[in-house]
Amino acid sequence: MEPAARGQQPTRPAGLGLLVLLCSSLLLNAVFIAHHLFLPARLGDEDGGSCGLSWALQAAREAEATAAIECSGHGQVFLDGVAGEDGRPGCECNTCFGGPDCSVRKPNCTADADSGNPLFLEPYWRRHAAAGAVVVSGWHRMSYTATDDGKFQSLELENQIRQLHRAVGNAVVDDKHVVFGAGSMQLINALVYALSPDANAAAPPSRVVSAVPYYGSYKTQTAMFDGREYKWGGPTAVWANASRNSTNGFIEFVTAPNNPDTELREPVLRGSAAVFDRAYYWPHFTPIPEPADEDVMMFTISKPSGHAGSRLGWALIRDEKVAKRAYEYVQNSIMGASRDTQLRMLRIVKAMLASLHGEEDIFAFGHDVMRTRWRRLNAVVSQSRRFSLQNISPQYCTYFKRVREPSPAYAWVKCEREDEDCHEVLLKAKIITRTGTVFEASKQYTRVSLLKANDDFDALIERFTDLVNAEKYDTPGLSSI
Amino acid sequence: MEPAARGQQPTRPAGLGLLVLLCSSLLLNAVFIAHHLFLPARLGDEDGGSCGLSWALQAAREAEATAAIECSGHGQVFLDGVAGEDGRPGCECNTCFGGPDCSVRKPNCTADADSGNPLFLEPYWRRHAAAGAVVVSGWHRMSYTATDDGKFQSLELENQIRQLHRAVGNAVVDDKHVVFGAGSMQLINALVYALSPDANAAAPPSRVVSAVPYYGSYKTQTAMFDGREYKWGGPTAVWANASRNSTNGFIEFVTAPNNPDTELREPVLRGSAAVFDRAYYWPHFTPIPEPADEDVMMFTISKPSGHAGSRLGWALIRDEKVAKRAYEYVQNSIMGASRDTQLRMLRIVKAMLASLHGEEDIFAFGHDVMRTRWRRLNAVVSQSRRFSLQNISPQYCTYFKRVREPSPAYAWVKCEREDEDCHEVLLKAKIITRTGTVFEASKQYTRVSLLKANDDFDALIERFTDLVNAEKYDTPGLSSI
Repeated sequence: MEPAARGQQPTRPAGLGLLVLLCSSLLLNAVFIAHHLFLPARLGDEDGGSCGLSWALQAAREAEATAAIECSGHGQVFLDGVAGEDGRPGCECNTCFGGPDCSVRKPNCTADADSGNPLFLEPYWRRHAAAGAVVVSGWHRMSYTATDDGKFQSLELENQIRQLHRAVGNAVVDDKHVVFGAGSMQLINALVYALSPDANAAAPPSRVVSAVPYYGSYKTQTAMFDGREYKWGGPTAVWANASRNSTNGFIEFVTAPNNPDTELREPVLRGSAAVFDRAYYWPHFTPIPEPADEDVMMFTISKPSGHAGSRLGWALIRDEKVAKRAYEYVQNSIMGASRDTQLRMLRIVKAMLASLHGEEDIFAFGHDVMRTRWRRLNAVVSQSRRFSLQNISPQYCTYFKRVREPSPAYAWVKCEREDEDCHEVLLKAKIITRTGTVFEASKQYTRVSLLKANDDFDALIERFTDLVNAEKYDTPGLSSI
Repeated sequence: MEPAARGQQPTRPAGLGLLVLLCSSLLLNAVFIAHHLFLPARLGDEDGGSCGLSWALQAAREAEATAAIECSGHGQVFLDGVAGEDGRPGCECNTCFGGPDCSVRKPNCTADADSGNPLFLEPYWRRHAAAGAVVVSGWHRMSYTATDDGKFQSLELENQIRQLHRAVGNAVVDDKHVVFGAGSMQLINALVYALSPDANAAAPPSRVVSAVPYYGSYKTQTAMFDGREYKWGGPTAVWANASRNSTNGFIEFVTAPNNPDTELREPVLRGSAAVFDRAYYWPHFTPIPEPADEDVMMFTISKPSGHAGSRLGWALIRDEKVAKRAYEYVQNSIMGASRDTQLRMLRIVKAMLASLHGEEDIFAFGHDVMRTRWRRLNAVVSQSRRFSLQNISPQYCTYFKRVREPSPAYAWVKCEREDEDCHEVLLKAKIITRTGTVFEASKQYTRVSLLKANDDFDALIERFTDLVNAEKYDTPGLSSI
């Protein structure tokens, strides 16, 4: 039996080894199979790659695909851009750039510093893409009304706007009514209407006035709507003396900070009805010494967040009757600001609130950009004896809790030669500005916008540098100044 | 050796079997391992379940989660609804329903048939959720201007609107300028302004008129903006004789189909400047005998697509000078319709265009709803000798290419008893309508809106049925009619 026993000896451990190996291999397979059985379920949760999304997926993909198209950092593609031959929108290039991908730089191109287009904040929203994005469903707020009591205003947006004012500390909102309009532009005449005597009243029409230099639209719009109840009355200076006796029947626009010269204004006509235009009363443009608390104030989203195209403004009004008339004006003329915009701006205001005092504080970002631009422009203009800028001194800001450097939205440029039309002088040097006469000031002044895209500001600095350098070779007559 | 051989005999096949089994098992292991190694890569393509989306994902998920909240089919949740204690918006219930999920039916509730809120189209956009959805990025069209030449209007939206008119065949667009406004509401005064003599002209103010019954806002808004250049002149009848000699200085609003009585109107004052309000000239409300081709026409998105809350209207204007003045009015008063709305409406108009003449034709859907509602209301009112509706006969429609049943937006209800205030009579029966006096018609008439949500219409039918049934037990005086 030994041989047999001997013959079995090699097989026993071999068979055992094979068995052990086989078992572990089978066990491993069992694990894999179990794993494999779970997997489809897991993929199923993701709807085979739609990550749980259904109707919003297509729109989200289209938006991201469009945003991903490169325009060389000098332009962008918008979902509603004009469709090219491929049926898809192409790059829209910044001024001074061209070509299908905006990579072609236009040599010696004209700098456009005319409009107050707040594109300096665009990079902020690109950087915070998720926080600023919103999906609008096809059935969102189709109704005329946005509330049970038939109002055209989103209560939630109103709440968030009040929160923003409280958090920034730039306005007292608790005792005010909020009235939305299609930009503060529409609120100009809405408030003039609200503060004017009733059409049936025997009272003479209100005179709408503002101190020079003033924002041109006060005059343009009041003149366009000029009616029985109100008429444009020109600059306050004309009435300053008369108003010692009575300032009844005046509606004074007080812009603080002022557009164009960025001064924090006070009313000139004491006792007259005043509309405080607070469009620029935000910490990236100006120090906030204290919360504004006037009876009638105007704000717009375009300056704090940069969304000028959305056309949302709001008035803070103490008196209920005045607020009702302003609301009635917006109702009768446009039936309220777009509900689509109200939804989008709710997202934007929430994102701003969430950013405050953090690393991504939108006002810190904005102040940093505007301060740098003001520094750069000053550095150039200070080389010149022909041009000067308004003088702004650093001031304590209750929002930043420190003395902050100047960061105005506009430069109010003066040509030192008395006879010069400053707008024309700069235009010859390929810089488009807004002449002082638009603000009923002297043509020795012109407004230069510092709010636009980086490309616009860079072009402005280039053209201005050329101009200042050319001064050295300028007529000796200059030295007589 | 045999025993040994014999001893080895059983092991040889056993070992072979084990080997084969082991090999196949190991092979299977290899397959699983390979499969397992590929898998993370595959999941990687999906970014671990974000399906290739980055910044738009969160907004898309939030929108779908909000849309998924059930309100018992009698209400809905909006992204910008008032946040509850959990910080999330809750159900906004239709009239006659209440409770946190709108499941509580208010017994014997008042039917509100006052406003022309076009919510009858809401189910269409819910059914076509993907086609109507749009993602708005935080940096979308922040600029004041939407085109290189500084316009406030999206060229692409203008193109698509022209396409829609061509495809529907309800207006000749090729020789017209398109001017956007914040709803056709704003275009009322924009066109009055554009057609009025220049402020500097010596001409007397234009008289703004319309034939009774007319849409009340023509009067309200013209009176509110009443200025040097124009004034409300009342119903055309007052001027019909005078106008035989001269109709200079008149601006006549011709509403076709008319609001409230849905008649296809013609101008009364021949030779006067006419503004054709074509808000309801779409195939779900009226037959389209031919494309409208007047010099000045008004349209609004709220009636063809149902998006009243978006506030987008457009004028089609033949004369360039008139178009420029209308555009100037919109620019000076609101700086153009919201760019957010223009993006959203581009998506909506594209979706409408894609649906035409297909199974999901939005006008076929709309006509079906409105025709059914008209039938149901007729069935009820025809039981009554006290009330009557305007008479509409079926007519050939060039869009549907067949004779179509009536499907008016409004019922123009007449109370047959001469002394009755029809609005009051219906109000006592818990039906809110818009009294004829608002349209400067007799109080024997009142307007009943057929455009609202299904719940509203059902309540209307219930209340009206109760009212008509009550007639049987009414005063015998009725039989004398």
